[in-house]
Amino acid sequence: MSKAKGYAALSAKAPLTPYSFERRAPGQDDVVIKIAYCGVCHSDIHQARDEWGGAMFPMVPGHEIVGEVVAKGDGVTQFNVGDRVGVGCFVDSCVHCAERDVDLEQYKEGLVLTYNSVERDGKTPTMGGYSDHIVVKQGYVLSVPDNLPLDAAAPLLCAGITLYSPLRHWQAGPGKKVAIIGLGGLGHMGVKLGKAMGAEMTVLSQTLSKKEDGLRLGAEHYYATRDPATFEQLKSTFDLIICTVGTEIDWGAYLSLLKIDGTMVLVGLPENKVPLHAAALIGGRRRLAGSGIGSIKETQEMLDFCGEHNIVSDIEKINIEQINDAYERVVKSDVRYRFVIDMASL
Amino acid sequence: MSKAKGYAALSAKAPLTPYSFERRAPGQDDVVIKIAYCGVCHSDIHQARDEWGGAMFPMVPGHEIVGEVVAKGDGVTQFNVGDRVGVGCFVDSCVHCAERDVDLEQYKEGLVLTYNSVERDGKTPTMGGYSDHIVVKQGYVLSVPDNLPLDAAAPLLCAGITLYSPLRHWQAGPGKKVAIIGLGGLGHMGVKLGKAMGAEMTVLSQTLSKKEDGLRLGAEHYYATRDPATFEQLKSTFDLIICTVGTEIDWGAYLSLLKIDGTMVLVGLPENKVPLHAAALIGGRRRLAGSGIGSIKETQEMLDFCGEHNIVSDIEKINIEQINDAYERVVKSDVRYRFVIDMASL
Repeated sequence: MSKAKGYAALSAKAPLTPYSFERRAPGQDDVVIKIAYCGVCHSDIHQARDEWGGAMFPMVPGHEIVGEVVAKGDGVTQFNVGDRVGVGCFVDSCVHCAERDVDLEQYKEGLVLTYNSVERDGKTPTMGGYSDHIVVKQGYVLSVPDNLPLDAAAPLLCAGITLYSPLRHWQAGPGKKVAIIGLGGLGHMGVKLGKAMGAEMTVLSQTLSKKEDGLRLGAEHYYATRDPATFEQLKSTFDLIICTVGTEIDWGAYLSLLKIDGTMVLVGLPENKVPLHAAALIGGRRRLAGSGIGSIKETQEMLDFCGEHNIVSDIEKINIEQINDAYERVVKSDVRYRFVIDMASL
Repeated sequence: MSKAKGYAALSAKAPLTPYSFERRAPGQDDVVIKIAYCGVCHSDIHQARDEWGGAMFPMVPGHEIVGEVVAKGDGVTQFNVGDRVGVGCFVDSCVHCAERDVDLEQYKEGLVLTYNSVERDGKTPTMGGYSDHIVVKQGYVLSVPDNLPLDAAAPLLCAGITLYSPLRHWQAGPGKKVAIIGLGGLGHMGVKLGKAMGAEMTVLSQTLSKKEDGLRLGAEHYYATRDPATFEQLKSTFDLIICTVGTEIDWGAYLSLLKIDGTMVLVGLPENKVPLHAAALIGGRRRLAGSGIGSIKETQEMLDFCGEHNIVSDIEKINIEQINDAYERVVKSDVRYRFVIDMASL
């Protein structure tokens, strides 16, 4: 066992506070990572405040982890001490997936999340990246390309893969018109990644307040969805729309912006059900789909793609003691576009 | 002009009554069809009763039309007098589609429906198949294979293509597990067609009352959806689910029966919106899609497929004066599985 220090939520109502706990001693197959930075995902807040139910306290959040390998078990062949590595939303998966007979382990039961989850032993709680180090099986550790700055690469581990996976799966690329709903932590990665894949990118945001940013990030077009004219003007325009917002918007209105056979993919998770009319799908053989993060294999592919294209997140770096203020600002969408905690401040 | 007789709804509240009207004289490109049989589609009722809004009266319903060519314009090359032909849900389409630069004309604006619609002149109302003859451009006339009985082939023109198109598009075939929700006019065609394509077919019906029929039609499995155990038992089972019911069922519950990357396709059109949670799609990268009838090209492909596999509808033949009683029985789902009007009774 090793002593770890971090920040934890002790209950759903409490602000995050300094917290000491223990990590397991590295086993045969484990990598010990000194955490340099950890991104702040909106889902950290949902879970720390138990807004999705089932939260386990004390909870050390954080699943956009980057750092350096400082030790490893004898069986670790993929990584060496000193390697720049990352850990994303999960640290283990069901037996079958662990044996890699499928490549979509993120959708399978038995997934062990990086925090607010239990290890495969069924009892040991997992603790996330708002901490000084973490011990992870090598199969769930990612390589971070050398040319990417570690701090701004951290959000790739969740925000990046969450957008990369549907853009790839639904074939964003040259000749494709792709819209991103919402220009936040997820959305701004979508614009960058879709642009790098060669698609013609459009941002659909409530107002034009971030238009300049959107265009700088790589969008060719930017529309305000509070303006009803947007929906008239863009009717039947897009091959693919990715909805990154976690609020209950009118999916039917956005589906009408798809071409025949177009797909709208939900990656944001609204709390409540959204009423949808079947006609919005039947007219134009349109599709509404969901997508959640990505497999380990696809996450590595995404990191390599980001290395090739020099893509990282736009971040605002904070010290760990600013975390509770940062949470308030995330809730108000007051961040461009991702907070990243500098763990040297711990 | 030629005198036509048929049955019409004169208003949304009125029962259908005998009605005389005029058809255009056949133009260069027109085929004159003596109607032998016309199927009764639930959408006939929705429209005759103005349940979808925008109904135009007097209305002669009917878009599952089969009969014989009795005259043709000089420019008609595809059909000859005496040919067995059919007409489905539309009789013209937008200029671009009419010129066949796309093959999905059913999803394009400018589609001229077989009834309760206006011709491309923008004013002449279209009148459907509850009548003795119809005049249709050759590009919208289908050939009915010789081996199929005309009466039972009539429902292929709407119910048949409505199921054939999504089964083909989402690749029902050997090794695929396909479920059909609802065993009515649409659903029973789905079972027959999916079986003929080589898929393993399951019927999901409210109760087991039609189980024997479902198995006879080609399903390997039959489950009652009123039994909550069904949803436990069939979790993550199907590659494709086609929902034929026009009522507001819980789509999320059915989406949980799909495998990863599975698709549920809506072909029934509930009147109201259905509340759906994003998690039902995000978990398992599942897709909810819609599908509406099929193109002329695909409808001919479907008829040829039915010819090869000897597939027709299970029908109950009626005389035209029974139409109002038949409507009541359709509303009560009391028909196995499609009423077809014998036009000799007109």
